[in-house]
Amino acid sequence: MTRFRLTVEYDGRPFMGWQRQDHGPSVQAALEDAVAQVTGGAVAVHGAGRTDAGVHATGMVAHLDLDRAMTPFRLMNAINACVRPHPVAVLACEEAASDFHARFSCVARHYEYRIVNRRAPLTFDAGLAWRVATDLDATGMHAAAQLLVGRHDFTTFRSAHCQAESPVRTLDRLDVVRTGEEIRVFASARSFLHHQVRSMIGCLSLVGRGKWTAAELKAALDARDRTALGLNAPPDGLYFVRADYPSE
Amino acid sequence: MTRFRLTVEYDGRPFMGWQRQDHGPSVQAALEDAVAQVTGGAVAVHGAGRTDAGVHATGMVAHLDLDRAMTPFRLMNAINACVRPHPVAVLACEEAASDFHARFSCVARHYEYRIVNRRAPLTFDAGLAWRVATDLDATGMHAAAQLLVGRHDFTTFRSAHCQAESPVRTLDRLDVVRTGEEIRVFASARSFLHHQVRSMIGCLSLVGRGKWTAAELKAALDARDRTALGLNAPPDGLYFVRADYPSE
Repeated sequence: MTRFRLTVEYDGRPFMGWQRQDHGPSVQAALEDAVAQVTGGAVAVHGAGRTDAGVHATGMVAHLDLDRAMTPFRLMNAINACVRPHPVAVLACEEAASDFHARFSCVARHYEYRIVNRRAPLTFDAGLAWRVATDLDATGMHAAAQLLVGRHDFTTFRSAHCQAESPVRTLDRLDVVRTGEEIRVFASARSFLHHQVRSMIGCLSLVGRGKWTAAELKAALDARDRTALGLNAPPDGLYFVRADYPSE
Repeated sequence: MTRFRLTVEYDGRPFMGWQRQDHGPSVQAALEDAVAQVTGGAVAVHGAGRTDAGVHATGMVAHLDLDRAMTPFRLMNAINACVRPHPVAVLACEEAASDFHARFSCVARHYEYRIVNRRAPLTFDAGLAWRVATDLDATGMHAAAQLLVGRHDFTTFRSAHCQAESPVRTLDRLDVVRTGEEIRVFASARSFLHHQVRSMIGCLSLVGRGKWTAAELKAALDARDRTALGLNAPPDGLYFVRADYPSE
């Protein structure tokens, strides 16, 4: 039995999310069905994160076990051939240690969120970014974001459906950077609560448009109450970009 | 009668090209139909360039005449509202001089071509870039490209359907720049022949993969013969990015 580690890119628009579902297409099912075509048998594909419907990835990490010999290069090409026409691609594939687990071995997860701050509707980026028509103050957003960095009870920024035992997380990075009409937010933590990134971005956008002060953002965090949430940003702009593991 | 100048972005994937056609959707028809909804009457929209099927624009310039008073800001928003669900957006709108003509006043046209140089199929960029799986030498492509810059007879790089009277054009810029796995080519000229950019890119890709030397590219140019063309690149990666006018 050989364990393989995959780096996967996907356009989340047509999917109900990462996780296999009974009622619609998922990235996991697209990959598992492709692997089944390659190997002729059912194989589970485990991901580092279970992204929501409409959320994208440029560097999701996943693993799977094969009971037959195959070079990583051949496996990558075979999955890419079989996964079509789904917008999913394996960017890299390598053999991994037998105790490597994409989800449980992961020590850091990195997300990016794309906001296009302009009046005109999106064309190329429809579903791939959040268009905000009102002028956003990215510098103010970045300053306020620093109040969320660190170890906190993130109950305010947590979906009612979140299954995590504890609402406490340590946010390592939340940087807001403007380049022209595009604003990118970089978020890093060992793990995130369900909807945490989108909820933080939604509230930061209120700061950016002058509806909230930084102090009000802090008060929302301190409230530890979901009803203190200002806004949940849409999934369109969210990308899972990297997962880190101890050996690296 | 007031003339308006528009800056237009469009995703070329669903269109037969810029120009209105009997047999399929076009960007011009999408815009003209939107303007007709705004004004209640037929209005012609003229573009700086007539891009082919599947070619995109981030900064096409167009003009139109209205016989009623309207602020440019209101016109822009009204067209953007009416042009949906087509992936077309007016990014800017301003009043123009009555002798301004998007096509005939234009003194320089700027295109970009996107190549994604990687093994994996495209996901987000399917139809928005040309994926080349073989490693390309972008430095060698850039050096060879300089042999095409200047005033030449570009018959080799001209479609059989080209309607221009002369095959002579002055190419002002042809720069090849690699950033990671993406290679961008920047092409500028007063005007281009039909398929000229795509034909130049196709031949440069042969240089990039070592199938042609720079001298062979030059020989193809000097042949002034369409049968000397090595390869025509697909429309997917081509973007009309800017048009210049004398007053600027």
